[in-house]
Formats: sequence, C-alpha cells, structure tokens
Amino acid sequence: MSGVPTHWYNIAVDLPKPLPPPMDPYEGESRIALLNRIMPSELLHQEFTSLMYVPIPDEVREIYMRLGRPTPLRRARGLEKLIGNGVKIYYKFEGALPGGSHKLNTAVPQVYYASKDGAKEVATETGAGQWGLAVSIAAALIGIKAVVFMTKSSYLSKRQRVMFMRTYGAMVYPSPSEVTKYGVEAVKANPNHPGSLGLAISEAIDYVLQGEGRRYIPGSVLEFVLMHQTVIGQEAINQIPEEPDLVVGCVGGGSNFAGLTYPFIGAKLRGEGFEKTRFLAVESKAAPKLTQGRYEYDFPDSGGLLPMIRMLTLGHNYVPPPSHAAGLRYHGAAPSLSLLVKEGVVETRAYTQEEALEAGVLFARSEGIIPAPESSHAIRAVIDEARRMPKGSVILFNLSGHGLLDPDAYEKVNAS
Amino acid sequence: MSGVPTHWYNIAVDLPKPLPPPMDPYEGESRIALLNRIMPSELLHQEFTSLMYVPIPDEVREIYMRLGRPTPLRRARGLEKLIGNGVKIYYKFEGALPGGSHKLNTAVPQVYYASKDGAKEVATETGAGQWGLAVSIAAALIGIKAVVFMTKSSYLSKRQRVMFMRTYGAMVYPSPSEVTKYGVEAVKANPNHPGSLGLAISEAIDYVLQGEGRRYIPGSVLEFVLMHQTVIGQEAINQIPEEPDLVVGCVGGGSNFAGLTYPFIGAKLRGEGFEKTRFLAVESKAAPKLTQGRYEYDFPDSGGLLPMIRMLTLGHNYVPPPSHAAGLRYHGAAPSLSLLVKEGVVETRAYTQEEALEAGVLFARSEGIIPAPESSHAIRAVIDEARRMPKGSVILFNLSGHGLLDPDAYEKVNAS
Repeated sequence: MSGVPTHWYNIAVDLPKPLPPPMDPYEGESRIALLNRIMPSELLHQEFTSLMYVPIPDEVREIYMRLGRPTPLRRARGLEKLIGNGVKIYYKFEGALPGGSHKLNTAVPQVYYASKDGAKEVATETGAGQWGLAVSIAAALIGIKAVVFMTKSSYLSKRQRVMFMRTYGAMVYPSPSEVTKYGVEAVKANPNHPGSLGLAISEAIDYVLQGEGRRYIPGSVLEFVLMHQTVIGQEAINQIPEEPDLVVGCVGGGSNFAGLTYPFIGAKLRGEGFEKTRFLAVESKAAPKLTQGRYEYDFPDSGGLLPMIRMLTLGHNYVPPPSHAAGLRYHGAAPSLSLLVKEGVVETRAYTQEEALEAGVLFARSEGIIPAPESSHAIRAVIDEARRMPKGSVILFNLSGHGLLDPDAYEKVNAS
Repeated sequence: MSGVPTHWYNIAVDLPKPLPPPMDPYEGESRIALLNRIMPSELLHQEFTSLMYVPIPDEVREIYMRLGRPTPLRRARGLEKLIGNGVKIYYKFEGALPGGSHKLNTAVPQVYYASKDGAKEVATETGAGQWGLAVSIAAALIGIKAVVFMTKSSYLSKRQRVMFMRTYGAMVYPSPSEVTKYGVEAVKANPNHPGSLGLAISEAIDYVLQGEGRRYIPGSVLEFVLMHQTVIGQEAINQIPEEPDLVVGCVGGGSNFAGLTYPFIGAKLRGEGFEKTRFLAVESKAAPKLTQGRYEYDFPDSGGLLPMIRMLTLGHNYVPPPSHAAGLRYHGAAPSLSLLVKEGVVETRAYTQEEALEAGVLFARSEGIIPAPESSHAIRAVIDEARRMPKGSVILFNLSGHGLLDPDAYEKVNAS
C-alpha cells in the first residue's frame, strides 16, 4: 500500500499499429548481435516483451521507495492565479528524486540488471547530465562503477553535475574524449567539436567493448527506458482527483513524456477512460525532430553502432546548437512516441530556449521551484494552452526535474 | 488530515528554568523599542508568548503544504548497512523543500506577517545563503520584495545561491556592503573583511531604518524562529515508528536542531514520553559556542543593534574562518538551546569541516542524497554514535538541507 506501482506498463501492446522493430543496416556486422554483447540481458528481453505489465523486481522497488517514490502530485495554484482564467493545473514533481530528475526511474533498474549479469562497471552517455548523475547515484547505491561520457559543451557548462557525479564516485569524460576511437576521430574532423549525444553513445559502447565486465546502458529512446518511466503516470492516475483535459511533457528522446502520458494513452487507446484527454509533446527548437523530422529508420547514435530504429529523426549526424536545455538536444524520438505522433494520438509543439526559460522564471516565482530548463519547455506550453482553454479545464504536466544544477541557464535569464 | 501540524510548539513553557528575557544594554537607546519599529509585530508577540501552542495561520499552512510539507521521514538503510552493527537510523529530510533547506518553515510565516503589517519589503542577513534563498522564495510567493545581505565570503563562494535568489526576484548585497554605515565602517577597518553573520544583521537593520514600508526578519537565534521550525519535530513524532534513543541535529543559531528536537524534549520534560532519549547538538569547530562559548548576555549582531540575549556565545565580534558549512559560522546559540545545554538536557559535540564532509560523502554514496555541508556535521555525529551504540538502538537526525547548491564544498572533497 505504499503507492509505488508493482509493474511497469508496456505501451507496445496497445499501440494502434505494430511497433516497427529495430533493424540491422544492409551492410556491416549485426548491431543486434552487438547489443547482446554490450547490454544487460534482461533489458533486451524487456525491449521486445509482449507482456502488458512487466514486474518491477523487489530490490528495485525498495530503492524507488527509499529515494522518494511515489513523487508528489501538486496543484500549481500560484501559476493558476497568474493565468487567472480558472484553468486548473497539476504537476507531477520528478525533481523530488535525488539528482533532481526522473532519470533515476530507469537508472536504478538498468544498473540493477547490469549487476545481476555480473558486471563491475556500467558505461553511458549524457547530455545535460541528468542521466549521468542518475546513473552515478544508482551505481553508488548498488555498488558498481559508473563511467559517463558527457557531451563536451555540457561538460563545460554544467560543472555542478560533473562535480557531483564524481562525488558519487563516477568516472566522467567529456565527449569527444581521447579514450575511444569515435572520440579521437571526431576531434580529428573538428578540433572544436562540441559533442553530441549520438557521439557520446558511440563512445560509451566503444568503451564497453574495450574491457571485461562492462555493460552499456542508455538514458532514453529505447522502449524499455520509456517503460521504466511509466511509474510516473501510473502514480499520477492514482493521485489526480479529476480527469485531465490535457497532459503535457517535454521531449528529449521521449522518456519523461512517455513516463507520464503512456499509462493515460494506453487507457484511452483501450477505451478505458480519458477519451477527451489530449496529449502534447514539447520539444526544443534546437532539435525539432517531432515537428520537422522525417519518419524513417535511422541510427540512435552518430557512430551507427546500435541497430536502426524507425523514428522521427533529424539524422544521426545532426549536431545541435549548444543549449542550456541540453537534455532536449537529441536528434530523434523513441519509436513508440514517433508512431503515436504519426498516428495523431500525440500533438507536438516546439519552443526556443528563451521562450521556455521565461516560463521557467514565472513558475519559480509562483510555485517556489526552479524548473529544469528542459521542463520549462513543458511549462511554456502549459501556460500557452491554459490561456486559451475554458474555465474549469484541467491540465497535468511533468515537472521532470528541478533546475538547481542548471545555474548557467538562469544566469543568462537574470542578466537579460 | 494532511499530516501538517496546525500549531507551532513553544518550548518556553516547558523549560526547567524560566528563559532569561532579552535585555537592553546599560547605555544607548532602547534596542527593544527599536525592535518594535523594525520587525513584524506578530513576531515580537510570538517572541514573548506564554502559549504552549501558537496557531499557524491558514495561509501559511496552505503554503507549507504546497511546498512539500509534511517532509519525508526516511530510514537510512544504506548507511545502516555500512555501519553494520544493527543500529537503526531515521532521518527527516527538510532538503525536500524548495530552496533545499528547512529555512522556508520560518521564512513563510515571517514574510506573511510582514505583509500583514503592510510592508512592501523584507530585509535580512544570510550566511551560506540557505536563509536568503528561503526568504527570496517566500517573498516571491507572497508578493513582496526581498533584500538580502550575504556574508561576503559566502557571496563569493556560493554563487548558485546568489544567482537563484535573483531568479526569484530578490536584491542581494555582499556584506560588508556600501549601502549601510556598518558595511562602510567594516571595510574602512579592514578592506578585506570577509563578512560575518553578525555584521550582515546590522546591515539589514540599518537598511530597514533607511526607508518606509520595510521590515527586518531574522533567520535564526530568536525564539519565534525556533518555534516556527517545530513543524519538523511534530511531524517526525507522528511519522517515526519507534521511540528514538538519540536525536541529532547541527547547530548554527539553533533553529533546525530545535525544530526537530523541541517537540521530543518538551514531551520528555513534561514526563510524557521519550524518557530515555538523548539529544545531541553538533556544531562546527569554526564557531564552537556550544562547547567553548560563555553563557552570558551578548548581542545577536556585531553592530549591537538588537537587544542582548543570554546565550552561549563566542562574543558578538567573533569573525569565524571562512567555511563551506557557512550556515554554522554564527557566534551564538539561541537562548532556549543555550539554557538546555547548560541544564544538561542537550549534549554537544564539535567537528571540523573535513570530518563532516567525509561523512557527507559516505551518506551520498549510501543514501543517494548529497547533504548540505551543515547537515553533514549531524551525519558525522550519527555515524560516530551509531558505532558505539548497542544493536537495535534507534537514531533520528535532521537532514536539514541538501548540498546541491554547495558545489564549492564537494569540489574540495573530490580533489582531496
């Protein structure tokens, strides 16, 4: 009776069309075979499961509870008052977790499954560092080593996250790094390469292939990552006292958006409620794959080491401009989310960083919490939507993280 | 039935001896008369109340709930395992509040009462910035302006807190500043003056006296501040499943320690439970008033603008060495806490910053949360005490804040 779900929800079984499976490219070695060498076996199993509900291991659930699940669902009465037209706004606060973001929801099971495989190290990529920090925390709690390749532009601007990853005991490399061939090649091609999430993925995989007892774990895009996040939406359905008209989340690869919305969307697709609920995915104009991407098979990483997945993508070599909302700079969106957008189940919207951070400051001053720059994109959409919705309408959004480790973003806003 | 207390608890009525009242010095104008000019009237009323329980205004209680009260009480199973002798450790997590510390518990009512007096601005001092940030948040939510004088050494090292205070809309001055005569005099005497909390208090008061519609509000030491914090301990008594053998907190001026322990101590003094419970107040060796101070009438501020209070003190002109746990650098301890120490009800202990931060890292890696450097002092004492307590013993401590805004402290630890 703790309020923490016992299972993760797998939307694959409820999608309007079958999910296009990961595919090997026509040439080169099999990426799917590679996955089997580098990833925890249970995660691959979950990637392709046909179960609607996948049980959460007791050890994982126990850590969820220790770290603060269920997270709070709160009413944003200050923001409501500011908007002033009688629309009700609820938010799920994933920033209440240590590390300050939703990323722990999947970091904990992924590190757990790696340790079950006997791994001594996990390696991963990170953009703004929310994911790297979550992996560092999970690895410390479970007792194995974390190695993080962090997009160089963020490594330089998000100093606090780098520092705290090290406090938790993790090894952190700026990407492009000197320890993998992909990093070395990228620097050769462009000595000022700012890094990209796709490149950092390739580096983490290469690192895993270089040694024994290492496993690669990803922070977003893969279906099991999204599935682990569905604890958010399952809790929200139990916590929210009324049916939302609109559910909003920001999208980097899609995991926090899916985490909140998929349990709602699944119920809607099965005809079990939420018939009138709309779903809005909000991205950064710095990486507008939902609004401007093509729906096609592409690599999740710039090195092309992972199997191709069918997704809305800007191309796996897309190098986004540096951005404070660095978690939203990824070139593609998860396959299930891409399909839901194509099928018209999920609406999309893109904002500039300035538009988002302005909303973030309004939220801070009316609700007391500094939002992550990523989450501020969702807040901007909430404000814009609320202004044109009728009195009594209900909005729910995912406050996927706080912004206390993003002083670089707010420093700019203060100065402007 | 929200679990948030309806009243604050006033320990004055349960103390073994009457609390020595604030006093005017023998010469100069009346400081008590000054207080009436600068502070919200209801706060002065509360400072001298003989009520055992003071009602929390509905508006304040509503904000408490919106911001995350009741805060979690958690079991530190990872830390227990690390210590490994079967002692049980619980902690109350005040870092779950926005701003990351317990300070909001008193910032909200103080700003509320200032606004009830018709004030347009509140002015205050801050050390590490936990208090200044809390006042900035409370002022944003309640809709008045905050002006913060921040100890210069912290202003330079705690950049994130300064920046976020401004994001919330506050005006922040390093102290000594150029806007008050006390600041100007201090710089004249010592051009490299690092600031002190006592000096910042004098500056804030002087600022209030310079204009209309301004009120001064203090972050610690005064009895009503400690009383506002008792929501922590009242919640903890309801939440903890077994009677603690030891309750621990760190002490700057005494407010987070009092907040957790006073409801327990009051019950013990009244013979209503917790007979075998010990109470341990932990300070920094950088400002060891509990272990080395004299028990006498002294000024709470270096300028001598406030009435004298009887307390354990190092002298109101004590200039502590710079420290990452800057919240523990105050020269005195609140009158009620000083009296409880003198009467042997509360035990004391002092640690160096290095001893504390080492414990902070252990806690981060075993429980997932980076503790505030201040709170790490309490953690150090918990670990040392737990190691010599028998199996099955129960410890409760106040994790008064998280350390995500104290990267300066952990950067040093990582490097060492």
